[in-house]
Amino acid sequence: MPLNTDAVSAQLSTFFETHLPITQFMKMEVESYDGQTLILRAPLAPNINDKQTAFGGSLYNAAVMACWGMAYLKTLEAGIHCNQVVTKGTIEYKAPVQGEIRAICSAPNQTVIDQFIEHFKHKGRSRITLNATIECSGKTAVEFEGTYAILSE
Amino acid sequence: MPLNTDAVSAQLSTFFETHLPITQFMKMEVESYDGQTLILRAPLAPNINDKQTAFGGSLYNAAVMACWGMAYLKTLEAGIHCNQVVTKGTIEYKAPVQGEIRAICSAPNQTVIDQFIEHFKHKGRSRITLNATIECSGKTAVEFEGTYAILSE
Repeated sequence: MPLNTDAVSAQLSTFFETHLPITQFMKMEVESYDGQTLILRAPLAPNINDKQTAFGGSLYNAAVMACWGMAYLKTLEAGIHCNQVVTKGTIEYKAPVQGEIRAICSAPNQTVIDQFIEHFKHKGRSRITLNATIECSGKTAVEFEGTYAILSE
Repeated sequence: MPLNTDAVSAQLSTFFETHLPITQFMKMEVESYDGQTLILRAPLAPNINDKQTAFGGSLYNAAVMACWGMAYLKTLEAGIHCNQVVTKGTIEYKAPVQGEIRAICSAPNQTVIDQFIEHFKHKGRSRITLNATIECSGKTAVEFEGTYAILSE
């Protein structure tokens, strides 16, 4: 069951504030979640580089947390309580990001999510690969793929 | 010609301070450079996550900048002035990092560096792939590979 945007924003925002001080410096926040797509955003200023565009490390942080957030929300929706970690990340920088960072993670199809959740219920651990993009001026500037593991608490 | 550690620390530190505000939040600094190995370090506190270990995004930032710094120093040593960007990064998290982050980038062999520099001199652009590791308790906790492009200013 998709969670409503306000509930999700509040839960993810609280997680960031409580546990990840660097996201506060980045001013990273949840823009929206509709059950299918999660968007995180961060302004350019704290994330700027020597070219007055977004620092590659900040782009990675936004993308890795958009996918992390998607996995987190799908476990919340399934009523699962678990520890979650990123195990691998790959990022390609195709063009500079010249303004606000908006990292967009679309959920994989329901079969993939169901397998992710069912495997956890049977084995106490599971793994999922998710993708995020960051656009600039209507084009894909960044492509990210991350793998996340969940484990029994 | 290797640059001495003090000169390098000063140049990289100045670059971080001037151009990358997030590195200041992270308290990232140059630990050492001997012409062959560049080590960046950052304390755990600003880079902590919900498990009281280092946040995956901070580990990425330290690793991507250790390799970025290596490419930067090799162009300085060759007397080249250029723009430098990261084009791709891949990171594998093998174990949690439970204290200070130390990202270690070892220079590739001299032939690879010479090709990187010579290609730039002929074409006005070049590309190099570099690796970094982050250790914890004597074991490799993080493996990073990044590709960097240099372009004429």
